[in-house]
Amino acid sequence: MKPEERGPYLQSLLEQKSTGEVREYFASLHPSDVADLLEDLNEDERLWVLSILPTELASESLAEMEEAEHPGELLTRLDPDRVDELVAELADDDAADLIGELGPEEQARVLSTVEGGDEIQELLEYPEETAGGIMTRDLIAVPSGHTCGEALDEIRRQAAEMEDFYSIFVTDRNGNLRGVVSLQDLVLAQPGTPILEEVEDPPALVSVETDQEDVGRALSRYNMASIGVVDPLNRLVGRVTFDDVIDVIEAETTEDILRFAAVSDEEEVRGGTREAIRSRLPWLIANLGTAALAASVVWYYQDTIDAIVTLAAVMPIIAGMGGNAGTQALAVTVRRIAVADESLTERWRVVGKEVVVGLVNGLVLGGILALAGLFLAGQPMYGLVVMMAMWGNLIVASFAGAFIPIFLESLGVDPAVASSIFVTALTDLAGFFLLLGLASALLL
Amino acid sequence: MKPEERGPYLQSLLEQKSTGEVREYFASLHPSDVADLLEDLNEDERLWVLSILPTELASESLAEMEEAEHPGELLTRLDPDRVDELVAELADDDAADLIGELGPEEQARVLSTVEGGDEIQELLEYPEETAGGIMTRDLIAVPSGHTCGEALDEIRRQAAEMEDFYSIFVTDRNGNLRGVVSLQDLVLAQPGTPILEEVEDPPALVSVETDQEDVGRALSRYNMASIGVVDPLNRLVGRVTFDDVIDVIEAETTEDILRFAAVSDEEEVRGGTREAIRSRLPWLIANLGTAALAASVVWYYQDTIDAIVTLAAVMPIIAGMGGNAGTQALAVTVRRIAVADESLTERWRVVGKEVVVGLVNGLVLGGILALAGLFLAGQPMYGLVVMMAMWGNLIVASFAGAFIPIFLESLGVDPAVASSIFVTALTDLAGFFLLLGLASALLL
Repeated sequence: MKPEERGPYLQSLLEQKSTGEVREYFASLHPSDVADLLEDLNEDERLWVLSILPTELASESLAEMEEAEHPGELLTRLDPDRVDELVAELADDDAADLIGELGPEEQARVLSTVEGGDEIQELLEYPEETAGGIMTRDLIAVPSGHTCGEALDEIRRQAAEMEDFYSIFVTDRNGNLRGVVSLQDLVLAQPGTPILEEVEDPPALVSVETDQEDVGRALSRYNMASIGVVDPLNRLVGRVTFDDVIDVIEAETTEDILRFAAVSDEEEVRGGTREAIRSRLPWLIANLGTAALAASVVWYYQDTIDAIVTLAAVMPIIAGMGGNAGTQALAVTVRRIAVADESLTERWRVVGKEVVVGLVNGLVLGGILALAGLFLAGQPMYGLVVMMAMWGNLIVASFAGAFIPIFLESLGVDPAVASSIFVTALTDLAGFFLLLGLASALLL
Repeated sequence: MKPEERGPYLQSLLEQKSTGEVREYFASLHPSDVADLLEDLNEDERLWVLSILPTELASESLAEMEEAEHPGELLTRLDPDRVDELVAELADDDAADLIGELGPEEQARVLSTVEGGDEIQELLEYPEETAGGIMTRDLIAVPSGHTCGEALDEIRRQAAEMEDFYSIFVTDRNGNLRGVVSLQDLVLAQPGTPILEEVEDPPALVSVETDQEDVGRALSRYNMASIGVVDPLNRLVGRVTFDDVIDVIEAETTEDILRFAAVSDEEEVRGGTREAIRSRLPWLIANLGTAALAASVVWYYQDTIDAIVTLAAVMPIIAGMGGNAGTQALAVTVRRIAVADESLTERWRVVGKEVVVGLVNGLVLGGILALAGLFLAGQPMYGLVVMMAMWGNLIVASFAGAFIPIFLESLGVDPAVASSIFVTALTDLAGFFLLLGLASALLL
């Protein structure tokens, strides 16, 4: 069955309320696909399906649902015994994500009844966007005194309950990490070899407080499937796996693109109308202020426009092209900061590069516009003013597009907050000032 | 040593030209860190370091270098015997990436001498952005007739040369995939169990022609560490691992953000000035045309501006706010298309949502501006014109920001080409037309 046929088929099953067939149908699907189908159902249907599905499938599907669909809230409406069953089947990090959505009282109520509630509670205490907030405590740890054979027996014991562990952590009696070893190397080694002869230093470790973006950077830099997380006493307390990192990268990308366009990062891409209005209106109102500033420059030069009314037609060209060039420089610089590991000195050189780009592109665009102006208006001086305004504004635009994010980064502020809206406001201001100021000085 | 101290320390070692110390220093680092250091050296230094490093470290570091630094070209300047050694150590996909950078003649020359050249040649024949272009042919495949114990022996044989294999593919005599099994499950199983009792259907497979973005989507959707790649005859020919997918996601994100800001996706984020000018100037020149169109509306209404010159100051506010609201709607919609699996019907509903957002935000902003206009100019009719223009332009902006990318997607065009520049051009045009048209009809 094609993915788009699944929904209608499910609807026909739901109408018949045939528990057996619904169960059987879902059992043939991956939890991620079940989650997609659940997202298209109404709340009563979701609750009914979750109550009849095999527990493992129900809990994994719940974990795969989009955050925007608030899967955690379903836990408050299901039968408490069923909630216990579902939470017991979940990986601890998935359980923490679901329960973390609830209000404090509901959290306490769910956590007090479920098995392992204390451990989930501990995970909930780490801030959401840190290694602690995304890690799982389920990992394979083998004592450093073991041989490879003993380690394999230990792994067989520990791994029975675990989906994928990727690497095996070797710890001493204080819980400090002595190294990692892959199952592959253990299987290939002689059973009698001490495990410490097979361990390697992991290429990177992170601490519980590490920002999730940095966790992703370390894991992706060293091509690790999972990365260990240590507490302030350097004891191994969890691990983050590549699939969490892929989710983080997706979320951070969305955040960067939305911020770039001045949309609050609280807006869910799949969110509703009300949320969209709430998240965007404050930015637009703030921008009304900066736009008024640009408008006041025009207001100030009213007499100039009154004398040469065609300037009103040139104004948006100068301002708009500046906005576009500034947005280009901003996008490249913000992205460069996000992906390239560079020193601050190297970064500042980017500003120089962008100014040169602005100088060249501004000269070309200014030249084209001057020729057009000369052709239309027949006045060389008019062409010169237009060219100088365009040239100047492109230099301002390129400088601002590169300088602002690098400056913010050097202050420790996320450079992605340098949204294109504010660069555009600046290039409007500069463009009007250059064009009208030069015109009033040279043409009147 | 902190990462930023590595460069200066290496420079001091290079000045002394002490082979032993340079080797020893690099041997303590991860290939990704060596790659970073190599990127800061000049070509002669790079070649010298690559010739003295242990072969495995040299080849892995070469594979980790940024594409923008053209590591492949180093292969054409190294001693041919050394090239053979380095390529022999590389994973086949990394070798194909490096050799793929070279011109056809150099490719043929390198491939004719190195071991396994034919296999690298085969990988090079797949388009770069497909599963075939990013996959490796190195994988563990076990005959479906084996027991778990026999399979483990087979894996020990095949895995000696391989870094990480994540899953074990089980194939029949025609090379068709019968299922996958994890090393973990094999180790836990009784040695005498037929392997077919332990295999599972993989949650997804891709074909050699699958676009790399879809490969990433499948792997991330089903949390797979590696995904099998099949040829048109459904034979297993390779696999793509999560680390390749993370690289793809990063590259695609950069592409989306740059396109959003109308920067050609050929521009490398870390590229030089000349490349930046070449990649951005064509977009700016194209936009000069759209800006001229908006300017012509102003030109057409010259008499209106001549009569009420303060309109020139209001123009950029109406146009600018429309541009910002359009950019917001565009960013959210483009990102929604990128991350959410939705039917086209669901997508079209997004246009409706955005129009409502525009209606509400436009009314609020128009209201604020009308009150300011009333206060400053004291004319109710003037306030009404300003309000209606703002309101109308925000509706146009929201509609365009959502409609354009969804329309492009429905035509099979990448919605990310709907750059903010063109939405801004449209809102300039609509803003000027609404403001000046209404003013000329109602105020003159």
